Amino acid sequence: MIALDAMGGDFGPEVVVPGAAISLTRHPNLRFKMFGDQAQIEAELSKHAELAACAEIVHTDSAIAMDAKPSQAIRQGRSSSMWLAIKSVADGDSDVVISAGNTGALMAMSKLVLRPISDIERPAIAALWPTVRNECIVLDVGANIGASASQLCDFALMGAAMARALFHVDKPTVGLLNVGLEEIKGAEEVKQAHGILQGLDALPIDYQGFVEGHEIGQGRVDVVVVEGFAGNIALKTAEGTARQISQYLRDAMSRSLMSRVGAFLAQGGFRTLKAKMDPRRVNGGTFLGLNGLAVKSHGGTDALGFASAIDIGQDMVESGLVGRMRTDLHDFHERLSSKLAS
Amino acid sequence: MIALDAMGGDFGPEVVVPGAAISLTRHPNLRFKMFGDQAQIEAELSKHAELAACAEIVHTDSAIAMDAKPSQAIRQGRSSSMWLAIKSVADGDSDVVISAGNTGALMAMSKLVLRPISDIERPAIAALWPTVRNECIVLDVGANIGASASQLCDFALMGAAMARALFHVDKPTVGLLNVGLEEIKGAEEVKQAHGILQGLDALPIDYQGFVEGHEIGQGRVDVVVVEGFAGNIALKTAEGTARQISQYLRDAMSRSLMSRVGAFLAQGGFRTLKAKMDPRRVNGGTFLGLNGLAVKSHGGTDALGFASAIDIGQDMVESGLVGRMRTDLHDFHERLSSKLAS
Repeated sequence: MIALDAMGGDFGPEVVVPGAAISLTRHPNLRFKMFGDQAQIEAELSKHAELAACAEIVHTDSAIAMDAKPSQAIRQGRSSSMWLAIKSVADGDSDVVISAGNTGALMAMSKLVLRPISDIERPAIAALWPTVRNECIVLDVGANIGASASQLCDFALMGAAMARALFHVDKPTVGLLNVGLEEIKGAEEVKQAHGILQGLDALPIDYQGFVEGHEIGQGRVDVVVVEGFAGNIALKTAEGTARQISQYLRDAMSRSLMSRVGAFLAQGGFRTLKAKMDPRRVNGGTFLGLNGLAVKSHGGTDALGFASAIDIGQDMVESGLVGRMRTDLHDFHERLSSKLAS
Repeated sequence: MIALDAMGGDFGPEVVVPGAAISLTRHPNLRFKMFGDQAQIEAELSKHAELAACAEIVHTDSAIAMDAKPSQAIRQGRSSSMWLAIKSVADGDSDVVISAGNTGALMAMSKLVLRPISDIERPAIAALWPTVRNECIVLDVGANIGASASQLCDFALMGAAMARALFHVDKPTVGLLNVGLEEIKGAEEVKQAHGILQGLDALPIDYQGFVEGHEIGQGRVDVVVVEGFAGNIALKTAEGTARQISQYLRDAMSRSLMSRVGAFLAQGGFRTLKAKMDPRRVNGGTFLGLNGLAVKSHGGTDALGFASAIDIGQDMVESGLVGRMRTDLHDFHERLSSKLAS
């Protein structure tokens, strides 16, 4: 059962409902609980008969504004579509919540309602990142600023559990994002995390050591671990660079008649490129490390993008991600403590 | 007078000397001191008569290896081409040193020999970053991990002085790189630096507040300020994303005969794109905040790339960058102290 915050995002039910309809064609067994304004949701559902047959509406009078402060949302938003959708996961009525709403509010509410897994201190936001090989997972991309060595190790295990769920690899490769300059060799916490991950045998990950920024897109590892400030900046910088080069390309192709003719003939190639670079393919930031799954869709995405976020959520549910992550983190902390004690 | 570490980089005099020859055609008044193996330099100079007429060779027996540890280089490398080239700036014999050698060694030696400007605690490495508008300056891209609020403010003034020199704007626009998520609003030091830069009137910069990663390539500001860990990761990630998209583009254009024909016809456009994305155009990381100028060229660049690094150095010399930076930083710290005292 998938809980949808139908009022989240820039477009609410107009994108959420058709998004669910797309996802249903890919996963015919899906069932949805849609939280939000009944009349608006019904109006959209009336256009999607198959979806309507497997969707249940939970009416809510209020929704969290996109610009609400998280603290305010938590105090005043307990009858909102977002809160009730998250709560349905905590209550065991749904397996995952998907929202395109206010990121800060979703993070704060998810932490409060779903609670972090007992062995970890902090959840993280994990992003799917397209690479020349396929995709990788980068975390944390902005749940927190800074991370201790032990938190970075938690992120490594959490990201690996997600990679196992989405990429179907048994022992995902993991790297710590670092700077390569000889004279500094990275932040203390990153070096300490490196020591811990290298020092423990039989972890459920294939630890590859440090990776640098340019290696993310090369797909050198399945999971890239970094604290949230640098991780968020890396993600946004990559998105900005992709947009920048698209603009260069458009400008370059329109500057002469010959280029325009060539670009017209090569339009099949350009379509392939566009599909490859389509941000909707990898839409969805996952809150990892909670006792329940929450996926954040981009607020401005369309139905196709929202469907990707649902797909990611469903893949994680099917693989039993939360249970596996709990076990992995518990084992890791047990072994780390016994190693430190000996 | 430009001091060249002729032995630096992957190719030594084979790239450094032809690079100087290219730069000389653009700046006919340049004079060079070339530090390194006399025989090797002379062999290259013999192919460039005009350059030979305005180049002086300072023979050195040793050079710093690309993989030498900075601490070791400082202890054992005092008769190296790199050390003596830097020293020639400190002694007032040259205006700027350009090296494609070992980054860590160059940084450590430059700090030791040129010393930081008295008002600041730390130098930074500034990178030229191509944008859809033109270029911007991003610093620190890896001189140090972490930065206090006051150091971030120093970077803002140092970067602005460089922007003034290279972009010929009187009051460069400056932004602090931050994450945009509501619930965290960035690291403490970044918020404090924001408060300082907003609170002081009549700074020689046009402070624009926070910018996010995707806004760097949009050219929203002339100068982007960030501590060195996130800055280095952002730079490498952008470089990696550019390579990744180039590869997507090559793959997409070669997948059908029609696309290949189109790409052939559009080759003028692709040449424009390639020129726009050529990393040699913006080759050269500048060590800012020292009592003298040092520019680091990529170690693997060719003569054209090395010439760009010389050009950047020469532009900064001509504008009197070091003097201006000293004045700006001194004024800033005086006003900050008097504000804190009142």
